Amino acid sequence: VFSSENLEKSCLADRLAGLHTSAIRELFKLLGQPGLISLAGGFPDAGLLDAPGLALASQQVFETQASSALQYGATEGLPALREQLVQWLSHKQIRVQVDDLLITTGSQQALDLIGKTLINPGDVVLVEAPTFLATMACFRLYGAHLVGIPCDTDGVDVEALEAAIIQYNPKLIYLIPSFSNPSGAVCSLERRLKLLELAARYSAMWIEDDPYSDLYFDEPPPLSLFALSEQVPGSREKWLYCGSLSKILSPGLRIGYLIAPSWLQAKAVMCKQFADAHTSTLSQAIAAVYLGMGRMPSALSHMRLAYAQRAKTLVQALRQELGEAFLFMPPRGGLFVWGRWQGQETSAGWVQDSAWWNQRAIARGVAFVPGEAFFPQIPDKACLRLSFATASTEQLNQGVKRLAQALSD
Amino acid sequence: VFSSENLEKSCLADRLAGLHTSAIRELFKLLGQPGLISLAGGFPDAGLLDAPGLALASQQVFETQASSALQYGATEGLPALREQLVQWLSHKQIRVQVDDLLITTGSQQALDLIGKTLINPGDVVLVEAPTFLATMACFRLYGAHLVGIPCDTDGVDVEALEAAIIQYNPKLIYLIPSFSNPSGAVCSLERRLKLLELAARYSAMWIEDDPYSDLYFDEPPPLSLFALSEQVPGSREKWLYCGSLSKILSPGLRIGYLIAPSWLQAKAVMCKQFADAHTSTLSQAIAAVYLGMGRMPSALSHMRLAYAQRAKTLVQALRQELGEAFLFMPPRGGLFVWGRWQGQETSAGWVQDSAWWNQRAIARGVAFVPGEAFFPQIPDKACLRLSFATASTEQLNQGVKRLAQALSD
Repeated sequence: VFSSENLEKSCLADRLAGLHTSAIRELFKLLGQPGLISLAGGFPDAGLLDAPGLALASQQVFETQASSALQYGATEGLPALREQLVQWLSHKQIRVQVDDLLITTGSQQALDLIGKTLINPGDVVLVEAPTFLATMACFRLYGAHLVGIPCDTDGVDVEALEAAIIQYNPKLIYLIPSFSNPSGAVCSLERRLKLLELAARYSAMWIEDDPYSDLYFDEPPPLSLFALSEQVPGSREKWLYCGSLSKILSPGLRIGYLIAPSWLQAKAVMCKQFADAHTSTLSQAIAAVYLGMGRMPSALSHMRLAYAQRAKTLVQALRQELGEAFLFMPPRGGLFVWGRWQGQETSAGWVQDSAWWNQRAIARGVAFVPGEAFFPQIPDKACLRLSFATASTEQLNQGVKRLAQALSD
Repeated sequence: VFSSENLEKSCLADRLAGLHTSAIRELFKLLGQPGLISLAGGFPDAGLLDAPGLALASQQVFETQASSALQYGATEGLPALREQLVQWLSHKQIRVQVDDLLITTGSQQALDLIGKTLINPGDVVLVEAPTFLATMACFRLYGAHLVGIPCDTDGVDVEALEAAIIQYNPKLIYLIPSFSNPSGAVCSLERRLKLLELAARYSAMWIEDDPYSDLYFDEPPPLSLFALSEQVPGSREKWLYCGSLSKILSPGLRIGYLIAPSWLQAKAVMCKQFADAHTSTLSQAIAAVYLGMGRMPSALSHMRLAYAQRAKTLVQALRQELGEAFLFMPPRGGLFVWGRWQGQETSAGWVQDSAWWNQRAIARGVAFVPGEAFFPQIPDKACLRLSFATASTEQLNQGVKRLAQALSD
């Protein structure tokens, strides 16, 4: 009577109906094959993290504040960390007070708290197409109806976005304006200012997810829309900003933060209290001490140089080996190259579908992420994402050679 | 047009309608007054945590596995920690495999994942009355309708519970069978077996929240219902078990775990992926190394002795100073004394309300937690919770003296 199948059917909450294992998760199970070069990852290179600096910070925490770092802490976050982040953000023209910051367990939790506090089942959320997978899944669990807005290398199409605002009256608009995952696109300053004007004009709340802006190669992206909102009256009160230390300090610490209007922040704090009480005090204390050491700027310079070099290697290899078969814009920061197969004649006919090509590529010993999963609705199946973050020069060159072989198989 | 009030009204999700700052949170703001003795806390004593052992573990993690401990990890948790926990649990007759364990960000997150995966708005959840505040708030955010079942010092009233199962057809039943927060009650072995028979008989899923069972004074509580479910066919497949390292190793690490049937575990993993990706890998690695060191049993013995001594001090002081005015059962473990004012003639008439008495007590320089907030529906306002966990002998004696003075003011 009470078989697993029956229990599962009778017990699971309705909100899980649309929840499936992500295509990427399934893909990753295939990546164990020996010798395979994976350009499918989304991780930063652990070898570029300042482990010695974090080891020192950890030692200092245990020597000077072990009791408090091992104890429960405030849901809002450790005051010392919030103070350090206020300092850190001020260098990016983000002027906030300690109380404006809620420390979250990775910026993924900031997204979850936004979903919990704002999304009613059926609410429309506008997102860039393509956009970050885990945001879509997270918001869908709260019943969001996601609508994709077209993008180009200068970011989201502002006119299309305004038309969608008028058509759908969305509750939320979600953007990754700097070195987006997956597209690598950077929203231009001109568009940023136009977006802020839309924010002032319409009732929707806006989310700026900004984990990558410090990972620029030659020059920083434009100021964050949050920083720019000072210049556009009526926009700041609609603006939520999600930041993270995962890409620039350490993903393993799980430290992100949310900046939101105070009425929303207060509710997010309550929801966090009942979601995980607070973020690891030990992680927070280590991050606070680390930021206070002043090592971040040089660690970041080192990281930027390495990623810029790897991006350059990948871009050159793609141009040389694939030529016109793969169209893409060279990234100016972040961790990814996003592009589009132009298609090729095969025994199965003319094929553009990147999932199909990924199977071939894996057979040749290289993997990427097919683009389909990054679209909320109608996918552009010809697109794909390549990461240069964790591969060596040799792996990047060899990996692209294998891609070329897969194309000509 | 877009004032904060308007935005708040138009944007906040409906699920937040019943969410208010907890009475305890408000109370804690009053506890800053100099010289006040707080028996209101819910924290373990940070001074009893094995900080030197954790410092060693942390050092070892940075020396031997810094890269992986600072990198992203699997949503399910660090394999090394899951293996150590399997070992640890086997001493408590909990026989599980690594794959049965999902590491959560504190056991609070296990509760949140249960809410997300199982609770539809309107679903009934039966809880002990009184029960843990943050569970009620967490489940209500998913739309649960909570129904309280009476308890005594032997735990939940099994007959009343069965009647409620028949009346309400609940989705979930939530229990803290060993040294409950707030009541300190221990469910007897006899009742545990009866509860497991109910689990086998009815369709509801059951949650056993078990953060305190290692904090016994003289002898361990009966085996967990999860362990006992091996003996009652048909019960294990309904059973969810939430464990935590917060009370026995360190709350600041934020490490809990969930054991659930595989169909549910798979969904909880997906929900966790979109809630915080994974629990701090650094915290997990430190906990795994610590458990591998074999220091836990002696650290726990030390902790048990200290809490037992403090509990004894508090119990003696309460008997001596308050006598018949305050009825309670001496705790056999955990962190709390739970009891009931018998009431007293005052200038405001005969008063039993513990919130009223708490105001008087605070004026006298001592604070406790009024019991009202721990009840899902009709509260017993005469009840209150005292913690002996972080107070010295002198503070406990002095605190109770002040309570007695407040009574005779």
